[in-house]
Amino acid sequence: MKYYSRHFVKPADLNPAQRLFGGQLLAWIDEEAAIFAGCQMGTPMVVTKLMSEIDFVSSAFCGDVVEFGFEVVDIGRTSLTIHCEVRNKQTRERILQVERIVFVALDLEGRPTPHKKAGMTLDQAREATVADREQRLAG
Amino acid sequence: MKYYSRHFVKPADLNPAQRLFGGQLLAWIDEEAAIFAGCQMGTPMVVTKLMSEIDFVSSAFCGDVVEFGFEVVDIGRTSLTIHCEVRNKQTRERILQVERIVFVALDLEGRPTPHKKAGMTLDQAREATVADREQRLAG
Amino acid sequence: MKYYSRHFVKPADLNPAQRLFGGQLLAWIDEEAAIFAGCQMGTPMVVTKLMSEIDFVSSAFCGDVVEFGFEVVDIGRTSLTIHCEVRNKQTRERILQVERIVFVALDLEGRPTPHKKAGMTLDQAREATVADREQRLAG
Amino acid sequence: MKYYSRHFVKPADLNPAQRLFGGQLLAWIDEEAAIFAGCQMGTPMVVTKLMSEIDFVSSAFCGDVVEFGFEVVDIGRTSLTIHCEVRNKQTRERILQVERIVFVALDLEGRPTPHKKAGMTLDQAREATVADREQRLAG
Amino acid sequence: MKYYSRHFVKPADLNPAQRLFGGQLLAWIDEEAAIFAGCQMGTPMVVTKLMSEIDFVSSAFCGDVVEFGFEVVDIGRTSLTIHCEVRNKQTRERILQVERIVFVALDLEGRPTPHKKAGMTLDQAREATVADREQRLAG
Amino acid sequence: MKYYSRHFVKPADLNPAQRLFGGQLLAWIDEEAAIFAGCQMGTPMVVTKLMSEIDFVSSAFCGDVVEFGFEVVDIGRTSLTIHCEVRNKQTRERILQVERIVFVALDLEGRPTPHKKAGMTLDQAREATVADREQRLAG
Repeated sequence: MKYYSRHFVKPADLNPAQRLFGGQLLAWIDEEAAIFAGCQMGTPMVVTKLMSEIDFVSSAFCGDVVEFGFEVVDIGRTSLTIHCEVRNKQTRERILQVERIVFVALDLEGRPTPHKKAGMTLDQAREATVADREQRLAG
Repeated sequence: MKYYSRHFVKPADLNPAQRLFGGQLLAWIDEEAAIFAGCQMGTPMVVTKLMSEIDFVSSAFCGDVVEFGFEVVDIGRTSLTIHCEVRNKQTRERILQVERIVFVALDLEGRPTPHKKAGMTLDQAREATVADREQRLAG
Repeated sequence: MKYYSRHFVKPADLNPAQRLFGGQLLAWIDEEAAIFAGCQMGTPMVVTKLMSEIDFVSSAFCGDVVEFGFEVVDIGRTSLTIHCEVRNKQTRERILQVERIVFVALDLEGRPTPHKKAGMTLDQAREATVADREQRLAG
Repeated sequence: MKYYSRHFVKPADLNPAQRLFGGQLLAWIDEEAAIFAGCQMGTPMVVTKLMSEIDFVSSAFCGDVVEFGFEVVDIGRTSLTIHCEVRNKQTRERILQVERIVFVALDLEGRPTPHKKAGMTLDQAREATVADREQRLAG
Repeated sequence: MKYYSRHFVKPADLNPAQRLFGGQLLAWIDEEAAIFAGCQMGTPMVVTKLMSEIDFVSSAFCGDVVEFGFEVVDIGRTSLTIHCEVRNKQTRERILQVERIVFVALDLEGRPTPHKKAGMTLDQAREATVADREQRLAG
Repeated sequence: MKYYSRHFVKPADLNPAQRLFGGQLLAWIDEEAAIFAGCQMGTPMVVTKLMSEIDFVSSAFCGDVVEFGFEVVDIGRTSLTIHCEVRNKQTRERILQVERIVFVALDLEGRPTPHKKAGMTLDQAREATVADREQRLAG
């Protein structure tokens, strides 16, 4: 699991029980996951289609750093499924995981549209990401 | 299903695909559900423990009014499980539903603690809510 | 008075005196009232035209749930006047009331435009709302 | 009327009618007025007690600069009443005015408490503000 | 140095060390400076091009009022350079200063475009601002 | 340069020129840099002390993904200096860089305090970070 982003828990993010507000955490997950998915699919025009069960294993508190890990687990023609783990960066304690978050790519009229990795296997998709990166570094 | 609250989709709530940002919607659900659960359990000291699978059935757009319905479906000693439906207020079209959102009541040290409806059946809980309301109206 | 929506007072909503920031409360009132008015007038294109005197009777604190009640009190050709009450959901204590909030419906060029209930009496408007709801439930 | 502060209308501040959201404007007024009142009363521990009728004379749009003018119009023992005008900085067109906004100073227990200008006339208060400023500049 | 705007430090603006979050302060500076620059250049279509070194001299705390002073220090054909000072309004203690913030005016296609004060000296620009104000007051 | 975090440019982040608002970008930089610095220094109690000149090389637009790279460039007893680069994730185009951002670690009374890497060379600090990570993975 590679971790791509993190957030600082600030006073403004707390619920009345002085813990990270669950809704704020879900908003962060959705945004970070959408970035990851959009980069894989080659378009920012993505919408969340499904989130599987979310089990809030532990809480986060003011001053904690929370980090977000993602990996692709399934590739559809117009969709991409990713796995997400959220943990406390200092203690490595898991905060929650989501088995599957499904994103769909949209065209300019808002209809589902094939994305850059449609038809690839997970291995091909991984290689395409690496090739992409090398080409950009070389370019 | 009784609808308790609603939100206006404003320009600030949109994703780059000009739809209601999924993370914003999840933040609203968690907050509205926490209010509902906290009122039932008799304390604002509640944390989200679990959200079952979320299927985003339809999108919301700028200017739409989104409304949130809840009902209690299970009562534990320190927890409460609620069912949630979100729909477009004008068209009544379903936007998503969450079968189960589990909240846990905490004491001042942050440990799970029995709540006001612990040990009641769903019917008893419903009657207690009504009695509560009548007493306040009479008081 | 029917209560349509509620908000949780979170740490981010407090002023330096550790009470709900008055400006946050006014922003909530205006948004909730605009939703109510827009649903009655049949368009999200509404702007606030007037708010009568606002007397802040009591304060709200972190963890409180605040609820918002509205009713239509006057119907113009392009405008609608509503009455608003805000109270603490747990204690039923009144936080404030606004006798009259006037909203105006706009067309796409931003000019005042007749709305769905223009020309109705208050009784007719109430019946129209009920009929509307029944038709949708049956449809 | 002296103008003390201003805000830029950004895309995030708009309502679905593409105008400055009324609730956002009210939140700005309350915050700017509380700063002005707190500086006059010598404490940040102030709460809004009353706002007189608000007539939204004209709208503001994306890119507009809105500025806020205040003056003291009445001095109580624990309260201060100020007059507020909001206008478009470029066109000088009035957006709204509020005849009276009443703020109350609180002590650490949250009870009304006499403030720095209690017992002064408006002229004395104005002189005290000037003397205060000169002393600080000299100090 | 003339002070044009101020902000109240609220609980939502604090970092985990209970001080005003540096990023929030930078966001306020950029917004207030953009308003000042846009008013001088006669257009809201401005972008920040450069900020010189920022030395955070002292911290601000919950309840403090922070005020922002600006003056024009250089005038280009499509740009304007301003000097900024931020201080605690009550104590007059300096919080930080930025020697130079450069803004560029854009046309509707997003290209740099000459602004209202292009070609003026600093003295001419000052006179133009005053004349502008008088004309508006007379108009 | 290693990239640690990224943000999605959403409609709410735009200025009236439809570009990423400079102040929003600065707020993101400060927060991401504070997280990076806090993790290196072993405490969330850090404050920004200095930011060197910031040159906004290119703009970001709605839908862009912006990513943030950091590395430690100087180690003081109570401070840490980091270098920051921000670029467009898709095009790899540089948006801005900040040569030096200085953070200071604070104790519970808010006084500068030695941090976890005080007295180390840059090489020692890098090794300590790696050893730290391995220990946690093994633990």
